[in-house]
Amino acid sequence: MTDQMYHVALASRPSGAPTAENFRYEARPMPVPGENEVLVRVHYMSLDPYMRGRMDDAKSYAKPVEIGATMEAGAVGEVIASNSPAFKPGDFAFGMFGWATHGCLKANLLRKVDPTQVPITTSLGVLGMPGFTGWFGLTELGKPKAGETLVVAAATGPVGSMVGQVAKSLGLRAVGVAGGADKCRLAVETFGFDACLDHRAYATAADLRQALAAECPDGVDIYFENVGGKVLSAVVPLMNNFGRIPICGMISWYNAGGLGAGASDPDITAPALWRNILVKFLSVNGFIISNHFDRFPAFMAQVAPKVASGEIAYVEDVAEGLENAPAAFMALLKGGNMGKQIVKVI
Amino acid sequence: MTDQMYHVALASRPSGAPTAENFRYEARPMPVPGENEVLVRVHYMSLDPYMRGRMDDAKSYAKPVEIGATMEAGAVGEVIASNSPAFKPGDFAFGMFGWATHGCLKANLLRKVDPTQVPITTSLGVLGMPGFTGWFGLTELGKPKAGETLVVAAATGPVGSMVGQVAKSLGLRAVGVAGGADKCRLAVETFGFDACLDHRAYATAADLRQALAAECPDGVDIYFENVGGKVLSAVVPLMNNFGRIPICGMISWYNAGGLGAGASDPDITAPALWRNILVKFLSVNGFIISNHFDRFPAFMAQVAPKVASGEIAYVEDVAEGLENAPAAFMALLKGGNMGKQIVKVI
Repeated sequence: MTDQMYHVALASRPSGAPTAENFRYEARPMPVPGENEVLVRVHYMSLDPYMRGRMDDAKSYAKPVEIGATMEAGAVGEVIASNSPAFKPGDFAFGMFGWATHGCLKANLLRKVDPTQVPITTSLGVLGMPGFTGWFGLTELGKPKAGETLVVAAATGPVGSMVGQVAKSLGLRAVGVAGGADKCRLAVETFGFDACLDHRAYATAADLRQALAAECPDGVDIYFENVGGKVLSAVVPLMNNFGRIPICGMISWYNAGGLGAGASDPDITAPALWRNILVKFLSVNGFIISNHFDRFPAFMAQVAPKVASGEIAYVEDVAEGLENAPAAFMALLKGGNMGKQIVKVI
Repeated sequence: MTDQMYHVALASRPSGAPTAENFRYEARPMPVPGENEVLVRVHYMSLDPYMRGRMDDAKSYAKPVEIGATMEAGAVGEVIASNSPAFKPGDFAFGMFGWATHGCLKANLLRKVDPTQVPITTSLGVLGMPGFTGWFGLTELGKPKAGETLVVAAATGPVGSMVGQVAKSLGLRAVGVAGGADKCRLAVETFGFDACLDHRAYATAADLRQALAAECPDGVDIYFENVGGKVLSAVVPLMNNFGRIPICGMISWYNAGGLGAGASDPDITAPALWRNILVKFLSVNGFIISNHFDRFPAFMAQVAPKVASGEIAYVEDVAEGLENAPAAFMALLKGGNMGKQIVKVI
């Protein structure tokens, strides 16, 4: 075991879209596990849109990453040293190790991952936080009913693809939105969406709305919100009475000047949004999956066997090398990935 | 019985705030009750902010009033002819008779009003649609818990004053917002609010927010939304995690150019609103009380005795004469009334 590891630190806060200068790849001393701590050599690390929010110092549901500190991430790897009876070297564990080659955490902050049923990468996507987010948000907050129509954007991402597949399994019509013809094909052919629209093919929210209306002849009952912006603006006027909008993200606005009261959007205004909620009796619920970890065992019990059997599909996009994580992350925020974005660390 | 009655018709659609030219007071033939119909001579008619929405032809939860048709309103009066065994002359009944001296409706569209327990005017306010709206929205959608903090605007109106009084009875801190020092005094002294802020005393949403923050030292758990605009913008950043926002109206935006996607507000943007819902896990629910009439008996059973005993207070502002209804309505939209606005028709 060497006495050095590597991590990616937040070098500076971005204004707008992050750039390479906001990140710093550097060596740091290898941690030594203390009491009840476990040292893990990271194999795969997750990249997720929420990390953009951690780079700002705006008040949010989570603290910002400090300048100079390790960028936050969930990751999975092999235990190489353990001072906990719960883990032994050779075990695989998921934890919030950050953008780093190694991580050292208390055992109670780790989740053991069984590498024999499904690949360990699934703990980052389809069977990790994103898949759980899609499953929980749709089933608990979306209140889906057979015959209804659902719209979700980023339809080939790990959240959207779970939402679409669960919706289909419950008898809903599932219409996706994604960026590019390849993603739309993937959404329909691999994830079973009834239709998927390429938002890049529509210059305005009104154009996208018209195309969505054609694919949603009975209106939209559930809009699973993970992007905001043009898609939100397109969908909201199509919502049916008593529709539900679970909100787990708004990636299109993440670079919008910190999203303070000053940030605006050309497509939709606050009064228009509010009016739609009022006159259609919508139920809009923001959530973060970390408030609902009590439901994780139920999620795994229900979904893991379907992933193992292939009934639930997943697609991963793997970047090679921790030093390339910033570039992969910047691409992710622009929709450059296809499926769940992962970084292979070793 | 004469062969003429009077009504106020919608003469033209307003752009922005309604003006006298949008209304036409005129005679029309007295209706003759058909099978199962009841003819009522209206004593009191209700004026409510929602009527502004009916004057536009934008898609909403209710159809717009047609040009030339009677303006919509709930009203209460005395039965003067009946072809239904359920009503006899001399009975009092509430119905959607419109801005009119008389109304003729099927008996199943009327609600009998007992004039012996409380004044019949209460059927328009504290024990009518507005009071029911406040009670239902707070107790069902606001999910109030003792010790929490509630904010409601139009605090001396028939909705806000019910919300505040129910909140206090459940052990919440109730902070009102109203227009003018007189209303604020009424909110505290008559309706028991812990505090009430005069939004006219604060030039900006940020100023109002600062004053609200001082009155809500533990943040805001429930914002009962009936106004939108500056108050919404002031309150949203003060919301606590897992806060609830029932929306029953947005009067400050009702004149905002039809509230289409083009209407904007200088104080708050769609991204800022959406971000607050997301990062604070808010639950935002639009509703209209007409979808929940199944709960009206429960409301009456719980609240009517408290109104009769004086435990729940109400204040009415009575304009004289149907011909003055347009002026009273225009004043209402500017906050010129004190308490529930009613028109004495005879």
